[in-house]
Amino acid sequence: MGSDNNPEPDVAGAVMAAREFEETIILVGDKTQIEAALAKQDTTGLSLEIVAAGQSVIMTDKPSEVIKTKPDSSIHVGLQLVKNGEAAAFVSAGNTGAVLAVAMLRQVGLGRIPGVKRPGLGVIFPIKERPFLIDNGANADCKPEYLLQFGLMGSLYMERMLNIASPRVGLISNGEEEGKGTALIKEAGPLLAASGLNYIGNIEPKEFMNGAAHVAVADGFSGNLVMKTAEAIARYMADALRDEIKSNPVTALGGLLAKPAFGRVRKQLDPNEVGGAPLLGVNGVVIIGHGRSNAYAIKQAVGQARLAVEKNIVEAIAAGIKQ
Amino acid sequence: MGSDNNPEPDVAGAVMAAREFEETIILVGDKTQIEAALAKQDTTGLSLEIVAAGQSVIMTDKPSEVIKTKPDSSIHVGLQLVKNGEAAAFVSAGNTGAVLAVAMLRQVGLGRIPGVKRPGLGVIFPIKERPFLIDNGANADCKPEYLLQFGLMGSLYMERMLNIASPRVGLISNGEEEGKGTALIKEAGPLLAASGLNYIGNIEPKEFMNGAAHVAVADGFSGNLVMKTAEAIARYMADALRDEIKSNPVTALGGLLAKPAFGRVRKQLDPNEVGGAPLLGVNGVVIIGHGRSNAYAIKQAVGQARLAVEKNIVEAIAAGIKQ
Repeated sequence: MGSDNNPEPDVAGAVMAAREFEETIILVGDKTQIEAALAKQDTTGLSLEIVAAGQSVIMTDKPSEVIKTKPDSSIHVGLQLVKNGEAAAFVSAGNTGAVLAVAMLRQVGLGRIPGVKRPGLGVIFPIKERPFLIDNGANADCKPEYLLQFGLMGSLYMERMLNIASPRVGLISNGEEEGKGTALIKEAGPLLAASGLNYIGNIEPKEFMNGAAHVAVADGFSGNLVMKTAEAIARYMADALRDEIKSNPVTALGGLLAKPAFGRVRKQLDPNEVGGAPLLGVNGVVIIGHGRSNAYAIKQAVGQARLAVEKNIVEAIAAGIKQ
Repeated sequence: MGSDNNPEPDVAGAVMAAREFEETIILVGDKTQIEAALAKQDTTGLSLEIVAAGQSVIMTDKPSEVIKTKPDSSIHVGLQLVKNGEAAAFVSAGNTGAVLAVAMLRQVGLGRIPGVKRPGLGVIFPIKERPFLIDNGANADCKPEYLLQFGLMGSLYMERMLNIASPRVGLISNGEEEGKGTALIKEAGPLLAASGLNYIGNIEPKEFMNGAAHVAVADGFSGNLVMKTAEAIARYMADALRDEIKSNPVTALGGLLAKPAFGRVRKQLDPNEVGGAPLLGVNGVVIIGHGRSNAYAIKQAVGQARLAVEKNIVEAIAAGIKQ
């Protein structure tokens, strides 16, 4: 029941995932709505289950309110399935703040992996080099040790999920030189340098876009601003180009001929292509998709969750944090 | 002696400015180099002076080192001219950190306007709506009162320089809802709301790009990340489009026909078009240009400095801060 157009894309994506991965997908939410959406799909031979949840969380719900007033939400019910071992992972395209808040609570969600100070939300940036940014908004205010752990968890994630040996880890700052940045950055740098990670120091946004680091560490406020600025300017440029191209018949013809190239760039920058954002540091696999996810993006997020289970990401983080 | 290719663009821009504005331009730096660059220009009837400075600051110089080791730099000498009333404003395309550091010092630079806690570096974003972002990197670590003053100074700047009555002021955050953001943002919001400014609350990067606010307030770390991310992704998209268009003869032909449209978007996003970044809160007009400034950008920055003097920006900020 998570995506902006739920439950259609969520259910259609689950059906795609059940077919492609030959796994059982449990759909959590309003039974009547899910059944209606399923009836539109060909589910022959697929393993799909429905688990009812009495409440659903909408995008405008405040996370703190969800915890108080919606104990039977599809987020709660889905996370409980993971906690009880009835599901291997939880995927949602829903209210990110609510998923984060519920997942982090030990009682109703999954709680943290022992030793993890703050779970971090990671995201694979939809640019050619596919760098991983962590934290992307779970923690606005951070301490240096949180950033150290984001680096560690991000490195383990990229190593296991993408088979990158010794991923390069950078710290997002407003200058490459050591000593550039906030007090937080200046304290986190030496911790990362002494961590045994393949730490390359401060990186600026342009190095991030160039793929200088496989893992870019940021506090959740800065990380979220970087991601949202990138999305906003990409949209701005696409709109500006379209307007300028359409403003004159010759450029309009050129635009028509060049359309496949625009399409390829758009596809390259499409967040649907890279799946969802893993919430690293909680005691279970949780993947959060974009609210705008279509069925394909949901399927990709399920695939990502499946791989994270197969690669024992949670166990790897638990072992890495313990060291 | 400021720009990456100094002194050619700086001198050529000064000549353009002297001609267009019919003002005296004082060139500060290495006399021999400046004279050689001037010899290539037609300066007939223009009022140009040279004031020698024994040292010049390069991009890799650390601001703290410049203060200690280069007391006769062109930055020091130029700022002293303003302090002594021999020049009305200082323009540099040089090492931003060094200009900031020297300008803020009362002894060797200009010092702060009484009551200003921290000068802020403003920048007009080169997008259609031309929003003003402050602080763009002068202060990585900020207190809520600094953000309040950035809002006030930015609002006065946009009101006077662009004749915008009651500019809308927003606070850059990772969510529009009140209560989103770091502890700093949560404390600065109420101060701005009570300030008498036309405060519209938190804005996300997409609202910033849409021109929701005329003035976007940020701590220098976040503001700098937003600007550098926008620059990096714009460059990334331009490169990706060029590569995709060239990859096939049909799209390549389309790209050729659409070229003027690309050119117009590039011009729209060209930082050279919007002049330099004003350092607001110091006791004099200081405009800092991009290191990549060409002659036209230098001329624009001089024009901006001239307008700031004419509009009594320093006096307006002094009066506004006093209230």
